[in-house]
Amino acid sequence: MHKSRLGALVVDCQSERIFEYAEFWGAVLGSEPESQEGQIDERYVRLNGAPSEAQVILQKVEHPSRVHFDIETNDIEAEVNRLQSLGAEIVERMEKWVIMEAPSKHRFCVIGPIRPDFEEKANVWE
Amino acid sequence: MHKSRLGALVVDCQSERIFEYAEFWGAVLGSEPESQEGQIDERYVRLNGAPSEAQVILQKVEHPSRVHFDIETNDIEAEVNRLQSLGAEIVERMEKWVIMEAPSKHRFCVIGPIRPDFEEKANVWE
Repeated sequence: MHKSRLGALVVDCQSERIFEYAEFWGAVLGSEPESQEGQIDERYVRLNGAPSEAQVILQKVEHPSRVHFDIETNDIEAEVNRLQSLGAEIVERMEKWVIMEAPSKHRFCVIGPIRPDFEEKANVWE
Repeated sequence: MHKSRLGALVVDCQSERIFEYAEFWGAVLGSEPESQEGQIDERYVRLNGAPSEAQVILQKVEHPSRVHFDIETNDIEAEVNRLQSLGAEIVERMEKWVIMEAPSKHRFCVIGPIRPDFEEKANVWE
């Protein structure tokens, strides 16, 4: 048994200006971007949204700008297996997450739990 | 005074196979896709997710596949004005919604209320 859920909406930006863009998206969505001092990794800026909603994260990328889903799970291997059985393919295994591609050709990532109410609210897969 | 919020995550698919892809994304996210009989418009398939979360909608499109945000609001003109003042630009005005582009170059739409708890939970802009 493991759990998973939509964890984050990642706004990939092919740009150095992610703090400026985080200000914009934060103002659009009514969320406060984390401060530069609060950053865990300089490639990311998190918006502090409602805990009941998927997180919104700006990411500095080399590929063209897009939006992708992060699926949060307490068992990455089990979730990757489940998603492969649904028709997704592994694109690349990173140290802490796995990049996959849907049959619809949208790329997404499988990551560890990221939302505070993951344990209580995530889908349970037997 | 008007209100707005992240209303929907739209999975744009450059494909005729949106029902098949809706089955995949529904299984990933633990949501049931609406039936073909229940469709309001044949270009869209909605996933019946939790009311507290942004809706996920598959859309058949002509442009390359991507994911975009829909911002829900009770006053499209006021929200478009607010977003323009934040730096977004109007791409095209449709009959019932407005397509905009962020400074980060991500396109998004401004639409009417779509989530059941919009009135209670949306951000209020004075």
